[in-house]
Amino acid sequence: MDGSDKRAMRRLESELGEPVAGGGLLHRRAFLRGGVAFAGAVTVAAKVNSAAAAPTIGAESPLSMTRPGKLFTGYGVPARSEEGVRRLFALVANREGAGTSRTPWHMLNGSITPSGLHFERHHNGVPDVDASRHTLLIHGLVKRPLVFTLATLQRYPMETRIHFIECAGNSGALTRPDPAQDTVGGLHGLLSCSEWTGVPVSVLLDEAGIDPRGKWVLAEGADAAGMSRSVPLAKLQDDAMIALYQNGEAVRPEQGYPMRLLLPGYEGNINVKWLRRLKVTEGPMHTRDETSKYTELMPDGKARQFTLPLGPKSVITHPSYGMKIQGPGYYEISGIAWSGAGRVRTVEVSADGGVSWATAALAQPVISKAVTRFRLPWRWSGQMTTLLSRAIDETGDIQPLRKPWMEQYAPGQGFHYNAMQLWAVDPLGNVKNTYA
Amino acid sequence: MDGSDKRAMRRLESELGEPVAGGGLLHRRAFLRGGVAFAGAVTVAAKVNSAAAAPTIGAESPLSMTRPGKLFTGYGVPARSEEGVRRLFALVANREGAGTSRTPWHMLNGSITPSGLHFERHHNGVPDVDASRHTLLIHGLVKRPLVFTLATLQRYPMETRIHFIECAGNSGALTRPDPAQDTVGGLHGLLSCSEWTGVPVSVLLDEAGIDPRGKWVLAEGADAAGMSRSVPLAKLQDDAMIALYQNGEAVRPEQGYPMRLLLPGYEGNINVKWLRRLKVTEGPMHTRDETSKYTELMPDGKARQFTLPLGPKSVITHPSYGMKIQGPGYYEISGIAWSGAGRVRTVEVSADGGVSWATAALAQPVISKAVTRFRLPWRWSGQMTTLLSRAIDETGDIQPLRKPWMEQYAPGQGFHYNAMQLWAVDPLGNVKNTYA
Repeated sequence: MDGSDKRAMRRLESELGEPVAGGGLLHRRAFLRGGVAFAGAVTVAAKVNSAAAAPTIGAESPLSMTRPGKLFTGYGVPARSEEGVRRLFALVANREGAGTSRTPWHMLNGSITPSGLHFERHHNGVPDVDASRHTLLIHGLVKRPLVFTLATLQRYPMETRIHFIECAGNSGALTRPDPAQDTVGGLHGLLSCSEWTGVPVSVLLDEAGIDPRGKWVLAEGADAAGMSRSVPLAKLQDDAMIALYQNGEAVRPEQGYPMRLLLPGYEGNINVKWLRRLKVTEGPMHTRDETSKYTELMPDGKARQFTLPLGPKSVITHPSYGMKIQGPGYYEISGIAWSGAGRVRTVEVSADGGVSWATAALAQPVISKAVTRFRLPWRWSGQMTTLLSRAIDETGDIQPLRKPWMEQYAPGQGFHYNAMQLWAVDPLGNVKNTYA
Repeated sequence: MDGSDKRAMRRLESELGEPVAGGGLLHRRAFLRGGVAFAGAVTVAAKVNSAAAAPTIGAESPLSMTRPGKLFTGYGVPARSEEGVRRLFALVANREGAGTSRTPWHMLNGSITPSGLHFERHHNGVPDVDASRHTLLIHGLVKRPLVFTLATLQRYPMETRIHFIECAGNSGALTRPDPAQDTVGGLHGLLSCSEWTGVPVSVLLDEAGIDPRGKWVLAEGADAAGMSRSVPLAKLQDDAMIALYQNGEAVRPEQGYPMRLLLPGYEGNINVKWLRRLKVTEGPMHTRDETSKYTELMPDGKARQFTLPLGPKSVITHPSYGMKIQGPGYYEISGIAWSGAGRVRTVEVSADGGVSWATAALAQPVISKAVTRFRLPWRWSGQMTTLLSRAIDETGDIQPLRKPWMEQYAPGQGFHYNAMQLWAVDPLGNVKNTYA
């Protein structure tokens, strides 16, 4: 910094007032109080400005102003220079249809996930379902079995709601002994958030008429894995949906085209894609997909089944692993928070490794069982520090630290991980994953 | 209908209770009261069911269950069978970069527009802007001119909000003497709704420091049309944003990559894409783009300028032109409503040409200056009728009928059309555009 930068910095510090917590955290509305300038931005602006004085602006028209642009298109795609913004995945040898792809949250902002970047978890690839022939059967302990085509469901009452879906295995790499050095997408990218539109399951169940012995429902997909899960009937009668539309258009093939089961706040796997039947049963069916996976191995050697709603969780996306902070000065700490129990009530951020905390601003409106973007102004001194966040949901449930979370389970149990993510910042501005 | 269908229909009618308005409109929660079945669906279900008895379900696995599915992809696209869901556009001879493409709302559902289907209005095509070299200049009546790169803006505080953008010329075809027979997308598709994330303009203006003489701001794009508009300073200091992200990812090229001006609720054209400068001025600049277009020709021959906020508006998307209602019975009437003045307070629907009205359910939460989905149960008798909707916003402003709207202006003035859309239903279930 030269002399004028230093003077600007001192003036800014007085304008922004005192930090509200250690490590340089400022009040969540500090940036919006007016009259505030950014040391970093002023420096950059001054440099660019001196090289391109204002009066010559007309003469330095960018190339794009000197020739006609491209034509209209029927279905748009991202800019060519954004082609690196893709789902993250690695093919597994001999199991090419089984695996995951992850949403690159560190390259995104906001709360909605573009449908092209929604995470995937398939057990035998993405089936090519013929929507015109696909049917949904409701049978088992019902008064009258019913079969619905897509055209029939289009006549039914619908609802539109924004909800996240998170895989039960998301963030599981953080149960390993050493902190994996990976991006937010790589570590936490089995999470996405969309606007879903579809038919309330309760309406269809009412029409079929539930036998009083019915308490659970088997949901089966039309993929080659025959993915099937047992769902408590009460959840289907609550806020469950047969989702037909995702972010306004037909649900994408990777997300269950032409219809998926949406169970807001429940672990991802049970939101059965390519849904072909719901069978009402007395108890859970203990399918392969809910016994071989998605259970929690406990310290006594037993496996706990059916931990379905996901706990409160948050992660700072900016800054995060793979980013380099460009010198001391003002930044916005930003991230995402969510809970399977309802609305996120509060997100707290610490910039001194958890010694002190400040309350982040939440993007409004905060929607139940949806990803909520949080933000907080931060003045980095240039010293080593650790950033972390914790979410508290409307039920009062608090996102735990890693140690108490790990102590609940047997070693190696990696499902439903929702502990806090810590990012260590070194004096060069490098950001690394750390456990303490 | 056969005898059992007729009995089912009679039972349903008693369950659903009396209509709340003429033409068969039912209470907005009628479908969700429980114990309700759909005559249409039961009929379909019974037919399908009789051809495929429940016990044989296992034997009739769809093809998709018999072979592995497709592999993972970095960036997903819609199902092949949805390829007809595209923006609607027609190239104009010798003016190929000037024109519009429209969002096909009649093929969509929910409130969010997928970014690939966001409407376009370009005056000289979509420029290929080099994001790494693009700059935003703030100059004119400011204390210090500033230049911002994309990297600089990434350090700034951001906000995330869902807002619609609507072209000033949207629905203009409805000012013609005869009602155009076209789809919702064709008539009203210069409207889209996205989640936008970016930097509040107020923060940047504060940093530049406004000269007290400054009251307006010239906004210019980096396209070959040099699209430029005058914006009241007060709007930029209110809820305006330099949008960098759309539905979570970088703003699409057709929407202004790498940055666009977002002025929530203001006519589309003034939300300048590929934004390269904001020049603070004493008064409006009367640019080509705000004098040759987007003004309102009044009965006295004068043109009214700067009608910037858009009025309350709604349109029924289901059913609508191009759809055929499949016989008498239960349906959901659904559509979209929005207002440039804030939240939609109420949407009323009439199924008897405007004689009587019922209040629709609004998808929650209702967001200010965003598209709101409305829905209402309807029992169609099979007789000729006319459907229409009217939006009332939080300021109490009511969407007008076509006749009083037209009488405000000189013949041929087609900007800012927000009158009610009427759909005539004939006994065969065909839906047509009508003016009365």
